[in-house]
Amino acid sequence: MTPTLAERLLAGDARAVARAISLIEDEDPAAADLVRAIFSHTGRAYLIGVTGPPGAGKSTLVDKLITYLKKPQRPHSSQSLEAEHNSAIAASSAVPALSSIGVIAVDPTSPFTGGAVLGDRLRMQAHASDEGVFIRSMATRGHLGGLARATGDAALVLDAAGKEIVIIETVGVGQDEVDIIRTADVSIVTLVPGTGDEIQALKAGIMEIADIFVVNKADRDGAERLVSAVEANLALHAYPAGEWRPPIVKTVATTGQGIPELVAAIGQFRTHSEGTQAARRKTRSEYRLRELVSQRFMDHLERQVLAAGELGAIVDRIAARGIDPYSAANDLLSRALRLPDAAITRSLDS
Amino acid sequence: MTPTLAERLLAGDARAVARAISLIEDEDPAAADLVRAIFSHTGRAYLIGVTGPPGAGKSTLVDKLITYLKKPQRPHSSQSLEAEHNSAIAASSAVPALSSIGVIAVDPTSPFTGGAVLGDRLRMQAHASDEGVFIRSMATRGHLGGLARATGDAALVLDAAGKEIVIIETVGVGQDEVDIIRTADVSIVTLVPGTGDEIQALKAGIMEIADIFVVNKADRDGAERLVSAVEANLALHAYPAGEWRPPIVKTVATTGQGIPELVAAIGQFRTHSEGTQAARRKTRSEYRLRELVSQRFMDHLERQVLAAGELGAIVDRIAARGIDPYSAANDLLSRALRLPDAAITRSLDS
Repeated sequence: MTPTLAERLLAGDARAVARAISLIEDEDPAAADLVRAIFSHTGRAYLIGVTGPPGAGKSTLVDKLITYLKKPQRPHSSQSLEAEHNSAIAASSAVPALSSIGVIAVDPTSPFTGGAVLGDRLRMQAHASDEGVFIRSMATRGHLGGLARATGDAALVLDAAGKEIVIIETVGVGQDEVDIIRTADVSIVTLVPGTGDEIQALKAGIMEIADIFVVNKADRDGAERLVSAVEANLALHAYPAGEWRPPIVKTVATTGQGIPELVAAIGQFRTHSEGTQAARRKTRSEYRLRELVSQRFMDHLERQVLAAGELGAIVDRIAARGIDPYSAANDLLSRALRLPDAAITRSLDS
Repeated sequence: MTPTLAERLLAGDARAVARAISLIEDEDPAAADLVRAIFSHTGRAYLIGVTGPPGAGKSTLVDKLITYLKKPQRPHSSQSLEAEHNSAIAASSAVPALSSIGVIAVDPTSPFTGGAVLGDRLRMQAHASDEGVFIRSMATRGHLGGLARATGDAALVLDAAGKEIVIIETVGVGQDEVDIIRTADVSIVTLVPGTGDEIQALKAGIMEIADIFVVNKADRDGAERLVSAVEANLALHAYPAGEWRPPIVKTVATTGQGIPELVAAIGQFRTHSEGTQAARRKTRSEYRLRELVSQRFMDHLERQVLAAGELGAIVDRIAARGIDPYSAANDLLSRALRLPDAAITRSLDS
C-alpha cells in the first residue's frame, strides 16, 4: 500500500515535507487533514524565533547558526565548546546531534519584488547537501493572522518530520511577525548599528519580546552605542532574582563571529526556561485556536450564509455610507448565528 | 441640553476627539455606538499613509509635512508653489486652506519601552499652538487586526471632526501595518540609506504598496544607491500608459528639504487617482467589515457559548496534544452555530 503523505512525513521524507508545506501555503483543504493526522506526533522540536528590522542580517545569522549547529559533534571531547553548547540546545542527551534542522523564512514579499527570495535560494543551495536541513520561504497570505497560522502549521510539519530545531525567521517587525516570534520557545531579536537612530529601532515593539538580543554587524561604527541603548532599555525593567534577563550577544554574521556565544545563550535560555516553556506553548496554542476559529467562521459565513456577491454588496453600502460597519457586522452575525439582531447587539455592545 | 460626544465631535471639539479616540483605544463598548453615530458624516478626509522601516525618519517627515501644509495660504499669489501644492491636496478649491490636520501615529510600543512615545509628545508640543492639528499615538491592541480596526476608527473620528487631511504613520513594516497603509488614499513608503542593505530593506513587503517613495536622509552616503535600487525594482514592473508610476522623492526631513516636492507628488497622485479612489475605499471597508465580524464572533463565542475557563481548558487539551487545533476549532464552531459537527467539517474541509 502506498504510504500516505502523513506517513511519509512522519518518516522524515524531505519531499513529503515540501509537499505538505505547499499544501499549507496554498490553503489547500487537505492541509487541515494533514495537521490533524500529524498533530499528536508534534511538540518535540525546539522553536527558535528570529526577528528584527529589515537589513539586520537575520538571514546570514540563521545561515551561520545552521552551519555551526551542523558541525560534526565530538561527544567524547567533553571540553569541546560546540558539543557542550549543542547538547544544551538538544532536547536531551539522548539526541545524538543536531543533525536535523528546519528553517521557515517568513517573507512578506510579492512577485513584484522578485529578487527577495534569491537570498533564501542561495542559502538553500549552500545547505542542500546537508542531510536533514530543510529551508523554506513562506510569503504573506491573506489577512488577519493567515501568515501566523501558515507558519505555525509549517512548524508542525517540520516538527512531525523529526526536526529537532525549527528556526522561524521573519523579516517584518509588525504585529503578526511579533506574534509569530513571541510564541517560539526562544525569541531572538536582531538589531544592527549604523542607522544612527538606535532609539527609533527600539520603538518597533520588539524590545519586550526578546529572550536574547543580537547586535549584528558588531564591527561597525555605532555598535557599542547600540549595545548601550539596549542596556539602557533593559535597565528600565526590574529583573527579580531568578528571572531571565535578556543577554546581548554581539555578532558579525558574515564572518561567524559571535555565533558560538549565541548558541550558548540559546542553550542557557533553554535550560532556564524549562519551567515556563509549557505556558508559552499554551499561549501559542491559544493564539492558533482563536485565529483558526475566526477564519473558519468567516469561511462559513461566506460559503453557507451569504449568497455569491452579497458580501460585496454590503461593502458597497458601507463605502456609500448607507450603513455603518458595526451595524453591518451585527446583521451578518445575526444571520450566521440565526439569532435576532437585538440579541447580538445586546450581547456585544454592553 | 448637554451635547452628546458625537455632537461635540461633529462640531470639531478637540477634547471630544481625544475622548473618542481614548474610547476606541480602550475598546470601550461606547466606541461602537460613537462610530455608528458619526459614520454618515465621514468620507471627506483625505487619508495619507506613511510607513517604512524603523529609523527611516517617518515622524520627522510627518512633522515637517504638517508644518508645510499649515503655512499661511496665499490664494492671491497664484505663482506661490505652496498654495498650488496645497490646493492640489485639498479636496476642492472650496476648501480654503489645509488648516485642519489629524495625525495618528501607530506605535506598537509597550510600557517597557517608555521612551518611545516621547518623540510624539515633543512633536505634539511643537504643534500644540496650531489650531486644527491633532496628533495622537496609538499602541498595539490585542491580536488579529485589532490595531487596524482601532486605527480605522480613529481616522473616522478625525474625519467626522472635520480634519481635511488625516495622516496615519506606522513604525512597523509587518502585515497589519501594511494593511493599514495600503488602504489609505495615498501610501507613502519611506526608506533610508546607510544600512548598506538596500535590497534587504526592499524585502519587507512594502514595495508594492507604495504610491510614492521617499528616500529620506538623502544627504547621506548611499542615497543615490538606494534610489537606484528602488528604480531597479520599479523597472521590473510594467507601467502601461496612464498607470501611476510611483515617483521617488528625496528628502532631508530634519531640514525640510524635499517637502514641497513630496506635497506636490501627493497632489499629483490625488488628481491621478480620482477614478480609483472609490475602489480603494471599498477595499478599506471590506477589510474593516471582515475584521469586525470575526472579532465580534469571537466575543460572542466566549461570552455566550462557552463557560468561564472553558476556552482555557480546550487550549490545555491542544497543548497536551489531546486534540488538534482544527478539530477543536470545528467543535467550537459547531457549538456556536448550533450545527452538527459533521456539517461544519463537510462545509469547511472540502
